[in-house]
Amino acid sequence: MLEMPPRLYIALLHYPVYDRQGRVVTTAVTNLDIHDISRSARTYGAERFYIVTPLEKQKALVGKILRHWREGPGARFNPSRREAFSLTEVKGSLEEVIADISERDGCRPGLIATGAGYSRGAVGFGELRKRMASDGRSWLLVFGTGSGLAAEVTDRADFILEPLGPTGGYNHLSVRSAVAVVLDRLRYGKF
Amino acid sequence: MLEMPPRLYIALLHYPVYDRQGRVVTTAVTNLDIHDISRSARTYGAERFYIVTPLEKQKALVGKILRHWREGPGARFNPSRREAFSLTEVKGSLEEVIADISERDGCRPGLIATGAGYSRGAVGFGELRKRMASDGRSWLLVFGTGSGLAAEVTDRADFILEPLGPTGGYNHLSVRSAVAVVLDRLRYGKF
Repeated sequence: MLEMPPRLYIALLHYPVYDRQGRVVTTAVTNLDIHDISRSARTYGAERFYIVTPLEKQKALVGKILRHWREGPGARFNPSRREAFSLTEVKGSLEEVIADISERDGCRPGLIATGAGYSRGAVGFGELRKRMASDGRSWLLVFGTGSGLAAEVTDRADFILEPLGPTGGYNHLSVRSAVAVVLDRLRYGKF
Repeated sequence: MLEMPPRLYIALLHYPVYDRQGRVVTTAVTNLDIHDISRSARTYGAERFYIVTPLEKQKALVGKILRHWREGPGARFNPSRREAFSLTEVKGSLEEVIADISERDGCRPGLIATGAGYSRGAVGFGELRKRMASDGRSWLLVFGTGSGLAAEVTDRADFILEPLGPTGGYNHLSVRSAVAVVLDRLRYGKF
């Protein structure tokens, strides 16, 4: 791990993302995304993990799940889950996430979009690690659900990260797996 | 990726594994484990992914899920899931898995046990990659559910792989995330 790792945030967007037909939609929150990505965020030393959905009912549902594991019966049943969930919160939009980080850290974070299908102009992990290490900013890794982030998100990103899988080959990791692998590569890099 | 990557198999054990109190138990199969690990296995070029449970009802349930995505409505709905699931099968024990690989490849695979808590004698990723590249054997990566593989499995392993997370720190990835990260490190190694 880097001596002074950059401050890293994670956002999982349920809107705006594509469905399998390429339409911009809002997806439903998946319970295991909350668990797995919270655990990865904590294990790899991320600052916060934001679950992003504009739907009030979904926000309420996520809030209920977080309270169960942070303060309710889940906290006593599984203290390590409580610890992971202490980093997790729900927001209504990517703008709200950026505003929250800006307030915490005093400046806007660099925006890194991820996905399985990008190629032109995408940044490699080695290069991104260098940029992150030499830049005092915080960084926000943005992951999409469904069939990936809509163009309105990738268009405004500072970087689009290269896909994890083989070029031209089968590359269909779950977003839960993809988050873990991206964090592992950014934090540990070489082994 | 290595020019001639070693033949790699994955087994997810639901028995014998520990529960949170250190008792040897059989855990229930989790639907998203089947999906996520099948997708990771296919993305990273594993030969097969074995779901291991001694419980007949659980084996039947897994078989039903696999058929849904391989031949049933799921195959038409999501062809990439069908492709991932083509590598997946259910077995009753680790012995059955080893017998299956031995029959496929003509010799017993090297056994690599994984877990979040091992340290003494554990092999690092760089060293394991070298060993795998210089050895013509197939390799079976064994992952535990619950609170990890029972000693009767780790005791017979050729290698125990070092934990993924920071020494002494929080290290509670889901098994779905851990499989993806281990495959990523073994296949791609440096970046």
